Amino acid sequence: MSIITAMETFDIRFPTSLELDGSDAMNPDPDYSAAYLIIRTDAEDGHEGHGFVFTIGRGNEVETAAIEALRGHILGADAEALLADMGATWKLLAHDSQLRWLGPEKGVMHMAIGAVVNALWDLKAKRAGLPLWELLSAMTPEELVSLVDFRYLTDALTPQEALEILRAAEPGREARKAALRAEGYPAYTTTPGWLGYSDQKLTRLAKEAVADGFTQIKLKVGASLEDDIRRVKAARAAVGPDIRIAVDANQRWDVQEAIDWMAHLAPYDIAWIEEPTSPDDILGHAAIARGVAPIPVATGEHVQNRVVFKQMLQAGSLQVLQIDAARVAGVNENIAILLLAAKFGVRVCPHAGGVGLCEAVQHLSMLDFIAISGTKENRTIEFVDHLHQHFITPVDVHSGAYWPPSNPGAGNEMLRETLAAYSFPNGPVWKESR
Amino acid sequence: MSIITAMETFDIRFPTSLELDGSDAMNPDPDYSAAYLIIRTDAEDGHEGHGFVFTIGRGNEVETAAIEALRGHILGADAEALLADMGATWKLLAHDSQLRWLGPEKGVMHMAIGAVVNALWDLKAKRAGLPLWELLSAMTPEELVSLVDFRYLTDALTPQEALEILRAAEPGREARKAALRAEGYPAYTTTPGWLGYSDQKLTRLAKEAVADGFTQIKLKVGASLEDDIRRVKAARAAVGPDIRIAVDANQRWDVQEAIDWMAHLAPYDIAWIEEPTSPDDILGHAAIARGVAPIPVATGEHVQNRVVFKQMLQAGSLQVLQIDAARVAGVNENIAILLLAAKFGVRVCPHAGGVGLCEAVQHLSMLDFIAISGTKENRTIEFVDHLHQHFITPVDVHSGAYWPPSNPGAGNEMLRETLAAYSFPNGPVWKESR
Repeated sequence: MSIITAMETFDIRFPTSLELDGSDAMNPDPDYSAAYLIIRTDAEDGHEGHGFVFTIGRGNEVETAAIEALRGHILGADAEALLADMGATWKLLAHDSQLRWLGPEKGVMHMAIGAVVNALWDLKAKRAGLPLWELLSAMTPEELVSLVDFRYLTDALTPQEALEILRAAEPGREARKAALRAEGYPAYTTTPGWLGYSDQKLTRLAKEAVADGFTQIKLKVGASLEDDIRRVKAARAAVGPDIRIAVDANQRWDVQEAIDWMAHLAPYDIAWIEEPTSPDDILGHAAIARGVAPIPVATGEHVQNRVVFKQMLQAGSLQVLQIDAARVAGVNENIAILLLAAKFGVRVCPHAGGVGLCEAVQHLSMLDFIAISGTKENRTIEFVDHLHQHFITPVDVHSGAYWPPSNPGAGNEMLRETLAAYSFPNGPVWKESR
Repeated sequence: MSIITAMETFDIRFPTSLELDGSDAMNPDPDYSAAYLIIRTDAEDGHEGHGFVFTIGRGNEVETAAIEALRGHILGADAEALLADMGATWKLLAHDSQLRWLGPEKGVMHMAIGAVVNALWDLKAKRAGLPLWELLSAMTPEELVSLVDFRYLTDALTPQEALEILRAAEPGREARKAALRAEGYPAYTTTPGWLGYSDQKLTRLAKEAVADGFTQIKLKVGASLEDDIRRVKAARAAVGPDIRIAVDANQRWDVQEAIDWMAHLAPYDIAWIEEPTSPDDILGHAAIARGVAPIPVATGEHVQNRVVFKQMLQAGSLQVLQIDAARVAGVNENIAILLLAAKFGVRVCPHAGGVGLCEAVQHLSMLDFIAISGTKENRTIEFVDHLHQHFITPVDVHSGAYWPPSNPGAGNEMLRETLAAYSFPNGPVWKESR
């Protein structure tokens, strides 16, 4: 038995607004940030669990306070007991009746639960000496089903149906693991497409992306129709007809506006339209999907929980489901969402970028390929090439693919120097900027 | 011109879990709490704006931190400018691109915006020397429309349609104001129905409620079917056939479970089934509404924003819409929701109780009656008789009705002694309990 002896939190912020990296139609000047935690135990192995919520600046202190609010469930607890039954541990946190009032199961408090859950998975994977994707994809169908809270899901997916999906994927697991190591998992890049970039920079970066082996790029749209047409045209000219170009409106439009706007971009062969409107608008997304077909609708990075994803699948709101490692309540809830997507036969193309989202979410797509959907056909993980140098195991993305990490853990761990330098507001990076 | 010179926050908690007041199938032991704020200016009138978010205990400090995160938009601002265009002020807070990431428009951060917005309305009403309901219902249709953010609403309600609804209700405003003063606004009581109460206490309180003039009571259900049947039967026996009995499952069920469970309670003439499942499940509520008809489905106290209400109206998910004064982003967003309900012809019966929710929400129903829907037919505001003594203008509920308050303000202001005594964790009430 080992006891959790510390849960340390950090408010980490990077001054990205200075460069307009990450700028889009809704988020003109983000400072990419992480509400971060470290869990320590008294075990002799010295392993720690790291986790985080990604935010874009102001309010990161609120997210950090929400993680602190979970301390009572973690500190002093028996680490083996928590890690042995991660399904029960998820419920312990997500079903706290007083904290639940603050959502329920959405926003600041739910994301904080995700950070703690993910930190525990990081610890569990390190103790097992395995990267998280390998740990998860070695679990039996029954073990995986036990991780999921089926409350509010059974009208779309029962535990028995989930078990059948997982059992159907069991036979090919070893072959797919080998394929993953040989081929990697497809990636696409958003690096060329930030709204704050000039056409020249966009064209240059788009060409570089193709040269680097990417077969899909993504452009931010939604601020000005005239600019969007010009930018999409320029991008298409730069990459030629064989590279997929997705566009992302970051929730900028109302329903009819999305349909009308996309009619102007459709001639440039659009791979998908991402976040056309409010992430809460299940029926709105369904209307847009009908209105812009055959262009697929993609969403998910701001979809608050499994209950909303369930309905988006039921209503035909999305044709590309974008999980995010740090929006819902961690690995467990993302497994529920992957199972729902498999049930409805919808492809999953994770949102990433931000701070550490690439490092974290790749494990989930790899699990999905090996043990859930059994395919990476037409699927791709977003890649944005910044801030990776702050992680102890930065992603390995080359030749247009994510390559499976081999280091133990969930990929969430930042360098000690980063935690010290970028702590807000008293770390040296912020102190010197004043 | 006056400047906002202070924004003070308080973490106020009442140890209600000791008495099981407020206990239900999802919330066995709430400590009713308020993340509270006071806005002060340098104006000579000395008026303050008070606002709060209601929570049920743990995490109230997170909500308080979220209110603090809005300080930068408020402190040092020109009070007249903020108060003169409350529509713009709402957008200033709700559209902060960095803070928006924490929702968007849901949960901890969105409720905090509501508290600040409501505190500003409290200040505006005090400066006008009017109770909020009177201030609002004297505004022109154009002024009321200017308060609403129509983003994500236009597929269901355009500004022009909202204007037409308000103009249609203009002629009878004075007559309805007089009717409100003469008749009050109908109330129902949840006091008898908490899950932690014995059958004896339930029966006694139900009879008292009828004697007090209430024509509707509400019972908590959802923990045990056997108990629910026995309790509903006992309540029906106690109140007779002419009193309406609503039941409230507090999100306890999955979709089919809700339909099956309600089939057992239907024989006792149920006025509505409230919160049968997740407040996020628009399609689930619609399925339940079809499955339990003609019993109406009621929900709203946990519905996160206008976008979800819009869809619930579009999908037929609810037949009774329950606004809450402290769940969405304040008065402005609740006006949007009242307009949506009017557009769809759905009755509004507010959620109240908690801490100060009765005091705050009555203003919105009174506005609705005078200037929006123009009716109180078949409508009723929840009433729970506790914690009113902590407010400077406690509700006046008697003869089964809310009576319109005459004191200036929005009803949010607590006594100074309460703020001192119940501050967590260092107020005397909490210090002595340790």
